[in-house]
Amino acid sequence: MKILGISGSLRRNSYNRRLLQAADAMLGEAASVHIFDLAKLPFYDADLDGDAKPAPVRELLQAIASADGILFATPEYNYSVPGVLKNAIDWASRPAYTSVMRGKPSAIVSASPSTLGGVRAQVHLRDILSATLTPVFPSPDFLLASAHKAFDESGGLVDAASADFLQKYLQGYVAWAGAQAAGAQGGQR
Amino acid sequence: MKILGISGSLRRNSYNRRLLQAADAMLGEAASVHIFDLAKLPFYDADLDGDAKPAPVRELLQAIASADGILFATPEYNYSVPGVLKNAIDWASRPAYTSVMRGKPSAIVSASPSTLGGVRAQVHLRDILSATLTPVFPSPDFLLASAHKAFDESGGLVDAASADFLQKYLQGYVAWAGAQAAGAQGGQR
Repeated sequence: MKILGISGSLRRNSYNRRLLQAADAMLGEAASVHIFDLAKLPFYDADLDGDAKPAPVRELLQAIASADGILFATPEYNYSVPGVLKNAIDWASRPAYTSVMRGKPSAIVSASPSTLGGVRAQVHLRDILSATLTPVFPSPDFLLASAHKAFDESGGLVDAASADFLQKYLQGYVAWAGAQAAGAQGGQR
Repeated sequence: MKILGISGSLRRNSYNRRLLQAADAMLGEAASVHIFDLAKLPFYDADLDGDAKPAPVRELLQAIASADGILFATPEYNYSVPGVLKNAIDWASRPAYTSVMRGKPSAIVSASPSTLGGVRAQVHLRDILSATLTPVFPSPDFLLASAHKAFDESGGLVDAASADFLQKYLQGYVAWAGAQAAGAQGGQR
């Protein structure tokens, strides 16, 4: 299984990118997580969204189309998702009924130094993914609170309880995504 | 009164930018609406958010600091605000307790070709502005539904009922913003 990893944080030592890297390592043979760098996209502009889309946008669409699922890892900025993450979804989701995001099995994890772990970003992201007709893994949420204490210096997820929860979460997601792929595509009319 | 206008849509003939232009014309002597172009900002990146911020970010912070209020005009993308709008708020809002957005009287309008007028973007934007400690004009919402029928070819707001509502909304906003400025700053601790 090929999973596209999308980190809502661009900074070099992002906890959320580390979560995606941890997921890639944990999944082993079962799946790979390839991270797409959102920084290379332009801002969404309807005047540019014609048949000839900007090259980085075509790259994003191709990466989503060829993936079996999307794993979002997002920080919480102002009770919501970062603009850079929303911008990527704005490009990838149009038009909703024929977009590459329609029916693509997704999962949402978040990491934050706060004790709330980014939960409000997850709530907004679920709203947003309902608009894009993108099914989201229904599960107890994985949120990494106090993220600054959970990784070692080389970026490994060393908090044992968090690593154990993430492992189980990912196993559940991969099984669910496989079942989604075998069933009908969501959002049909 | 100096109002900073922020349009969530970048396209040339954006209905939301037209709303800001209509607001500027309607307010006459009472206030001016100067539009800040969000396209020149980089994506938020915590690694760039130190003492030496990128020049366009400094420009945004200065524009907000020197304005008496912010008028947001936003389309709805995927049940939320566009990434480009959220990105600007991500830059302008940090850290929350000392940011230029704290206590700045704001108002939210939206325009959309749909019959819902962008209301879901307004709901997310109110969440976001509660995080930034930015007071939002409490009023019946101004939403322009079926926006493609409301403007003439030169971009003027010719739908009479909408223009009348917008005029009253803006008068109320200017009066409220003045009262906010006279009172205490919100979000103190």
